[in-house]
Formats: sequence, C-alpha cells, structure tokens
Amino acid sequence: MALVPLLTDDQADPQARAVFDDIRACRGTDHVNNIWRALAHDPAQLEATWREVKRVMAPGALDALTKELVYIAVSAANNCSYCLHTHTAAARAKGMSEAMFRELMRVVYLASQTNRIAIGLQVEVDARYLAPPAG
Amino acid sequence: MALVPLLTDDQADPQARAVFDDIRACRGTDHVNNIWRALAHDPAQLEATWREVKRVMAPGALDALTKELVYIAVSAANNCSYCLHTHTAAARAKGMSEAMFRELMRVVYLASQTNRIAIGLQVEVDARYLAPPAG
Amino acid sequence: MALVPLLTDDQADPQARAVFDDIRACRGTDHVNNIWRALAHDPAQLEATWREVKRVMAPGALDALTKELVYIAVSAANNCSYCLHTHTAAARAKGMSEAMFRELMRVVYLASQTNRIAIGLQVEVDARYLAPPAG
Amino acid sequence: MALVPLLTDDQADPQARAVFDDIRACRGTDHVNNIWRALAHDPAQLEATWREVKRVMAPGALDALTKELVYIAVSAANNCSYCLHTHTAAARAKGMSEAMFRELMRVVYLASQTNRIAIGLQVEVDARYLAPPAG
Amino acid sequence: MALVPLLTDDQADPQARAVFDDIRACRGTDHVNNIWRALAHDPAQLEATWREVKRVMAPGALDALTKELVYIAVSAANNCSYCLHTHTAAARAKGMSEAMFRELMRVVYLASQTNRIAIGLQVEVDARYLAPPAG
Amino acid sequence: MALVPLLTDDQADPQARAVFDDIRACRGTDHVNNIWRALAHDPAQLEATWREVKRVMAPGALDALTKELVYIAVSAANNCSYCLHTHTAAARAKGMSEAMFRELMRVVYLASQTNRIAIGLQVEVDARYLAPPAG
Repeated sequence: MALVPLLTDDQADPQARAVFDDIRACRGTDHVNNIWRALAHDPAQLEATWREVKRVMAPGALDALTKELVYIAVSAANNCSYCLHTHTAAARAKGMSEAMFRELMRVVYLASQTNRIAIGLQVEVDARYLAPPAG
Repeated sequence: MALVPLLTDDQADPQARAVFDDIRACRGTDHVNNIWRALAHDPAQLEATWREVKRVMAPGALDALTKELVYIAVSAANNCSYCLHTHTAAARAKGMSEAMFRELMRVVYLASQTNRIAIGLQVEVDARYLAPPAG
Repeated sequence: MALVPLLTDDQADPQARAVFDDIRACRGTDHVNNIWRALAHDPAQLEATWREVKRVMAPGALDALTKELVYIAVSAANNCSYCLHTHTAAARAKGMSEAMFRELMRVVYLASQTNRIAIGLQVEVDARYLAPPAG
Repeated sequence: MALVPLLTDDQADPQARAVFDDIRACRGTDHVNNIWRALAHDPAQLEATWREVKRVMAPGALDALTKELVYIAVSAANNCSYCLHTHTAAARAKGMSEAMFRELMRVVYLASQTNRIAIGLQVEVDARYLAPPAG
Repeated sequence: MALVPLLTDDQADPQARAVFDDIRACRGTDHVNNIWRALAHDPAQLEATWREVKRVMAPGALDALTKELVYIAVSAANNCSYCLHTHTAAARAKGMSEAMFRELMRVVYLASQTNRIAIGLQVEVDARYLAPPAG
Repeated sequence: MALVPLLTDDQADPQARAVFDDIRACRGTDHVNNIWRALAHDPAQLEATWREVKRVMAPGALDALTKELVYIAVSAANNCSYCLHTHTAAARAKGMSEAMFRELMRVVYLASQTNRIAIGLQVEVDARYLAPPAG
C-alpha cells in the first residue's frame, strides 16, 4: 500500500491532471500508471519527472527499445519491483522478444556476479583504463 | 590493493594459465585484465566465470554492443568502479560513440530516480502488469 | 511472512516482555510494532536494539522530527518497506506535514540521481573537499 | 579517474559554460565542482540536473540545512564517496555543527541496522500502517 | 507475480526438464523450487545456474551448513526475499539451530552498521591491511 | 580521506581513550584500527559500537571464525572496502585458510547472482516456505 493516495483525475489538482492528460496523449492509452497517480501528491515533482522521462526516453543515438532494456537492467539491480513490472511490459510493447529478454537478463545476472568479484576481491583498475578520452 | 595477489603468468597454475591464454586468443590482445589475475587465486572459479562471460556476451538476439551497454548500466547501479572502467572501455572499442554513452547514462540516472520514487512512495504495481505472458 | 514468529506477550520470555513494556511506556501506546515482536526471538538483541533506538532518537543537536526525516530517507535508499511505513507514520505523528514529506522525498529522489551521476561517471572528489577539519 | 574528461570553461560548449556561470553566481564562489565539469560532456543533462538541484534544494517547508542533512544520509546509504564529501562540506558551510553531524550519522547507522533487521527477518508491515492518508 | 511463467514439468522443454529431474534427485524431494521453474524460460541459463549451485555449495574447505549461513547473509544484504526464505529453510534442514540463526543475524545486523560507519565517515584503510599475501 | 579526523590517543577524550585501551587489551595488539579513531569524534557512539562488536562477535552457537566469514560476506555485498580489508585480515588471523577464503567468496558470487535472478524475474516465494516455525 502506497504511503500516499493514488489520486484519480478528479482528486488531482489541475497541474497534475494536465500531466495525466499528456501521458495519455503521448502513450496513446487511457491508462495512467500508479506511479504517476502517487506522484500527483506533489504536482511540481510529477511535472518535472514526466518532463525528464519524455526527454531521456526519446530515441536518439540509442533507439527506444534499447533504452527500455537499460531501464529494466537498472531496475533489477536496484530491486525495484514496480519498475521491473512496468518497464518489462513497456519493452515487450516496443518489440522486445522473449529471446531478447532472456539475453538481457543473462547479462544482468553475469554483471551482478562479476561486479561482486571485482568488489569482493577489491581488484584495482588496470592502469590502461584510468585515462579518460581527450576533452 | 586487492585482497589476493594478481598472479602473473608464471605464478598462475596451469588451469589458470590456460584461461589467460584463451582470454588473449579470444580478445586478440596481449593484456589480461586484473580481475582475471586476481581470480586466478581460485582457478576453478576463474574457469567457470570466464566460460560464463563467453557464453553470455556472445551476440545473439542482442548484439555485442547492446550487451556492453547493459553491463555498464548494471555496474553503475552496483557501484562497481572496476567494471565501469573496463566495460566502458570495452563498449567504446566495440563502437559505442560518446553520444551513445551520454544517452545510456541519462537512462541510468533517470531510472535511478524513478526506481527511488516507486520504492520511496511504496507504489503498488498496477493490476494489469501482474499477469505474466502465457507459458 | 516473517522468518520467525511474531511473539505475543504471553509467548515472549521475561527479558523480551520487559522491552515490550518499556516500548509501551515510552511511546504511550498499547501497540508494539511487529519488528519488536519478531526480534523477540532473540531477547538480547531486542534489548540492545531498543536501547540504541532510545539513545539515538532522543532529541539533541537535532530535534526528534529531523531524525525521523533522516530515518525515512535512509529507509528509502535501503529499500526497506517496513521502515518506510513505520517511520513515515512516526514522522507524521511528530508533526511532519505533507508539504514537508513532499520536500523530503524530492531530496531523496534528487540525491539518488546525483549519487548515480557521480558514481556512474566515476568523478573524483575535488581536492578542496579532501581535508577533514582539524582534530 | 573519471570516465569522461572534466571540462574547463574553455573546453565546455556555450550551454555548459552558461551553467557553470550560473553555478558560480548562485553559490557566490569561483569554484565549479568536478561533478559539473564531468557532466559537461552532456550539456543538456548538465542543464537539467542543475535546474533540478536549484528547484529541490531551495528552502521551503524544510530549510536548506535540513535538506543537506538528508542529502548526506542518502549519499551514505548509496555509498557515494563524491557526494559525501561535497555535501558534508556544503552542510558545514550552511551551519551544520559537529554535534549535528554526529547525531545525523548516528541515525544513519541505526537505520542501516534496523532496516537490515526488518529485511533480514522479513517482518511484515503492521496492518495499522498500511492505510495511506485520505486523498 | 513473476515476469515469466513458472513452468510445470509438462511445459518445460527437455533441457529444462532434465534439470528439474536432477534437482529432485540431488535433493531427494519431489519439489522443484519456483526459481527453477521461472528460470526454465531460459533452459541454457537454468542449466548453467544449477551446475554452479552444485559446484559451489558442495562441502569442501567449508561445510555445507556454513555455506548456507553465508548465503543467508548475502541475501539479507541484497534484500532478496525469495532467497531469504528458501535458504533459511535449507539451512534449518541442514541443522541450523535457532541459536545459530540468532547469532548469524546479529552479525548481519552489526556488519550492516559498521559497514555504514566506515562508508559514512569515509574511513581510509589502515596501511597495514593494504598488502595482499605473497602470490 | 575521512570526513572527520582520525584521533590519536592524545587527541581523544577520556571516554574514547578508554575504548582504545579496551580494544588494545581485548585484541592483544598496540594497533587501534582507523575506524575507531574516526569514530572517536563521537565518543558515545564509539563506546556503543565497540560494546556491540564485543557482544556479537564472541563465540557462541557459531564460532569466532564463522562470524568473521559472515562479516566478510556482508561487507562484500555492501561494497565496504574498509571492512573487506580489515575483516579479511581478522579472519586470516583466526585461521581462515586460503581454501576457505576461496570457497567463501564463491558462495558470495553465486548468491549475488541467484539473488539477482530471483529479484530480476520477480519470483514469488513457494507457499511451503512462507510459514514460520511455531513460536
């Protein structure tokens, strides 16, 4: 149970309702996800977060599906049940096949293990990887 | 400083040295990364981990570069300095442009924030996302 | 479902029951939270933890409400559903307004993102911040 | 060593340099922290992040110092060395006494332990804390 | 609800069913845990993971029960509800007394706190602990 | 560099110095680890933490070495460089062989991976593991 109420359109204030409307328009759906209805208790934050989602998830040098895959990977590493469910659904809607999902998760599992090896043994970074590319 | 010595080829036992040789052959380089030299204190684990890296990172439904992007994202979420450095280098070597890196990291930053919103407010998953696809 | 039973007053041993009584007295309530009833399977740990809660949460250089805000922030970062629920309730009981809660969570969300920026890009600490204050 | 170069004013593009100038103006200092110089490799993200920092950290229902304390707490929980250093310095500059810092950290240590108790024993939330306040 | 279906023996493909059979044979039970039925959506990963479980959890320099205790500790630190439940059951089946469980969890709680002290205060490692044992 | 000074015996106040003396007496060494010298900025917390370390780490249903192994495992999962170094040294001093260390870390790596599988796929706990033992 959320720590704040999930606001219906009627309960939300005008600033929040405008975000709900934009979500429906951008996504071509009548459904507004629970995270937005929860965040509507803070309309300024709702608006700022939705603006960032639109900015960051738009296709560019990476396509929209690759961005969803990365989102799932981060959500798994951060143990976010909510985002795992919603972004797996979003990725499938954008064309993620079950074979792609399997391979994505394999990388998540492997990195989770090798991250722990490097951390657990406190391996120092090889000198050759310490120089950033020229500015 | 690592908790175990980074073994040179001469110090490593034959099982570990065989893995070093395979790493050099597969990657077309003379350099064996520190994580493998540290893990050589446990040759059986070294062999098992390297076998998994080859299995999981081979291109399939996802290409090799996408897999590196996911690896970087998980390493950032897990706060693994070692893997961030080595996999960023690997991804650049496989064709990750700086524009791609920028967009990758934007998704990592955004997901880190929205994961925390969903967790911080304890938002329950929408009913529609709770049903898995048919078996 | 907890990994150990939540002990009732009748099931708890005398050392644990004494802690339950002190919790009720200190908090002016008949309710003993589930975490204490679970921890009662280890009365020595229960007593030690409750003693620390009383020591640390008492008002001092920081007031009691500020301490609850910090508790919520840490619980959000650690993904602790139990503590998020109980400490949000505690903070509200101590006077946290909904406006305060909104601003608290905004800082949690922002820090979650900038922490990930600093970690994800492996930014080194500016030299000026490396010197501690004089002993 | 950062994964991207820390850009000087001369190296930064105009959009990034404008953010640097605003940071200096808002903070009344000549110093621009390394995180901003690193983030300047992505001027759009730099601008978005700085805008959020200004929005979220402005005093409101919580004063500026309380917000810094929360920032430190989250940074400790997330293991962010960079933000621990910079925000501890910022909090001290805004009036955090050493006594306040001690009490802040005590709460961080305590919450880190009780979070782990609740998680480790898988304690279920008391029914009374599951109802959110009315919308 | 899992993101993939939990496959029954009839739904699983032959490679996955062979792993199910081996699990039943090795563990002397008719029950195959949900994690294996979920992982059966990726038979190659299922097989690789089960092989690693058998390799790593076999008694050697550490006995089987000590390995289960370590597993519980890591699962608590990683906030994995699933593994906490299954490995606590496994440890009890292998002889973990309730007194052992209490002491195990006390160490988990203590380490969670002292880890946060060392991280929160950014304590540098004593020079004497930085030298690894000779190779 | 720590956020607080590492206090020498001369700089520490009497309460902190008494803890230093007790550490030296209990451990039979002249060396006081940096974490205690950092924590000496808060003598009350120093005393409380040291008391807990003595209480929790004393041999009981689990022997002292097993407790150190668990400590290392938690420190690896929490990414605590300081505690990894100090507790690996402590475990070796208490008789941890390199073979034991190898097997310990294998379990840490494996659990890190299977934790992520269970979380990543959002596997629900088998009904049979949800009932706690009778109170």
